[in-house]
Amino acid sequence: MNERARRHGVGLRPHVKTHKTAEIARMQIQDETSGITVSTLAEARFYQKTGFDDITYAFPITPSKLAEVAELTALTKHFHILVDQLETLTTVEAYGRENGLRFSVFLKIDCGYHRAGVDPSAAESIQLAKQMHASQHIIFRGILTHAGHSYHCRDPEEIIMIAKQERDVMVEFADRLKQHGLACETISVGSTPTAIHAPGWQGISEIRPGNYAFFDKFQSDIGSCRLEEAAATVLTTVVAHYPQRNQMLIDAGALALSKDPGAVHLDEEIVYGAVPGNPLLKIFNISQEHGLITSQAPIAFNKFPLGSLLQIIPNHSCLTAALFPKYHVVEGNRVVDEWRPMRGW
Amino acid sequence: MNERARRHGVGLRPHVKTHKTAEIARMQIQDETSGITVSTLAEARFYQKTGFDDITYAFPITPSKLAEVAELTALTKHFHILVDQLETLTTVEAYGRENGLRFSVFLKIDCGYHRAGVDPSAAESIQLAKQMHASQHIIFRGILTHAGHSYHCRDPEEIIMIAKQERDVMVEFADRLKQHGLACETISVGSTPTAIHAPGWQGISEIRPGNYAFFDKFQSDIGSCRLEEAAATVLTTVVAHYPQRNQMLIDAGALALSKDPGAVHLDEEIVYGAVPGNPLLKIFNISQEHGLITSQAPIAFNKFPLGSLLQIIPNHSCLTAALFPKYHVVEGNRVVDEWRPMRGW
Repeated sequence: MNERARRHGVGLRPHVKTHKTAEIARMQIQDETSGITVSTLAEARFYQKTGFDDITYAFPITPSKLAEVAELTALTKHFHILVDQLETLTTVEAYGRENGLRFSVFLKIDCGYHRAGVDPSAAESIQLAKQMHASQHIIFRGILTHAGHSYHCRDPEEIIMIAKQERDVMVEFADRLKQHGLACETISVGSTPTAIHAPGWQGISEIRPGNYAFFDKFQSDIGSCRLEEAAATVLTTVVAHYPQRNQMLIDAGALALSKDPGAVHLDEEIVYGAVPGNPLLKIFNISQEHGLITSQAPIAFNKFPLGSLLQIIPNHSCLTAALFPKYHVVEGNRVVDEWRPMRGW
Repeated sequence: MNERARRHGVGLRPHVKTHKTAEIARMQIQDETSGITVSTLAEARFYQKTGFDDITYAFPITPSKLAEVAELTALTKHFHILVDQLETLTTVEAYGRENGLRFSVFLKIDCGYHRAGVDPSAAESIQLAKQMHASQHIIFRGILTHAGHSYHCRDPEEIIMIAKQERDVMVEFADRLKQHGLACETISVGSTPTAIHAPGWQGISEIRPGNYAFFDKFQSDIGSCRLEEAAATVLTTVVAHYPQRNQMLIDAGALALSKDPGAVHLDEEIVYGAVPGNPLLKIFNISQEHGLITSQAPIAFNKFPLGSLLQIIPNHSCLTAALFPKYHVVEGNRVVDEWRPMRGW
């Protein structure tokens, strides 16, 4: 991803929520002055303490979090927050005024995903940017979006269309801001699918993909990666054979895999991960600690003896990884290290 | 549940996987000599260290776990495991012989759920019980089942039918064992829905419900409880209003609520929890940290100001609770304590 970003002349500010470790974040950036993206204030605290000093907290801010944001702004060389509500912006400004602070703020834009962000065609969007520019307690850092609707694509061709939309919406909005005399330093975009397939990022400052650090079955299904490229897997044990119902029991359930159903827009039949090298096996049912596997063909049970291990590529690595207290770092067949991610909020 | 069990003359061995705390487990049992049920060996270690000395590890054992089981058997007054495979039973026996140990073992029976357990009508079931009885390294503790298919019911009437099936299958199988001259000390059944609605447990030794400690939206939907009885809730903040699309953003996503889709057999439309007092609100979309709420009617946004708190009853409290590092214990509107659950495997 670093190479891809360099080639296209765009910055890379990886979203570290996928793994939540210092070790992997360091592998993703050039050096510790490079920026990262986090999804919670707890992640921000963890990374600040681990030596990262340019952090974007990519979730719209709320008043109750401002005291912590103020602290992180003081401790970190660059700490950026997001706003997409006029009322919240006014509260942020007031907090800054009362405490003699300046917050570095992105205006969050909805480029078509319709999760968070202001509609760039609405009058409110310009009003927000104006108010940020005018405020002495806000540094208008730029505009930011997440093209999460790229996850609904069926193939790279569709992803490329979303990537173009993501770029176009942002560049056009920055132009409108310029027409209003509002300079926009940073234009930040990114999701793993669009970061993998975008034909280019003309006019864009930085991309913020996260999932690419691990990939998973979902990303493979929509064409962001090959299944073999998935880097985070769950190791489970074959516990029981039930030949009468062509099923095997494994000791990985919903607390080991997460209940993410995967790319259900591509296949209505829900399976909870892929077993590399065994494409016919289906993890069709999971409860808290139990997983049940069946197959389209009769299972060759002697290929999966009781007690043997199965590697599972999860549907959604971000949710799966968040369930484990540590990573076993593997080179070839050897565990060479253990990495401990941060947890909680 | 204690009162219900006493009234029906059946033992209660609560499944503590729902909350994973010592505090709640102590509230569930008569005293610490009473038995509990756990879903992982890590839970078993945690509860052994916390003073519980009668523990059933209710997941079929595998050879790789026997060293740990041996240790727990030595440390705990009563430690029981489950077997449903002849090959595994032979390995357990061999391990006992080599190490001069006796394991307390339940035969796991499939009473119709078809997840784990031996088919009681299969010849293998009697063969397993015989081999256990004959072994010097196994104490045949009895038979155990989990009527998880009660979760697929639509109402209490259907649950009562599953509860009867659960009881009948087990009592009839115990009778067959007796006909083979195989005494069966304990007959263990239980799921929360059947534990709530079973008309009685004649011939049954103990029930092992777990979810009832918290309940959740799922249990309310199928008729195990009223929604107001749900005891574990997630507190989230209203982050943004999007009146154009009649939506609100909250800071509770898949890592706060879990992606459990709830009782989809009752309603195909997936929502990720209930908002007490606001039955029209639907948490219709969650990603890692974002949750989106809409409503069947236009949302009265002034009723949910930015920064205000919303309480969410999760679909599946066991999976949701497992995502949090601690519980805030509430009496009325006051937080009176913090309880820390065990985590990991």
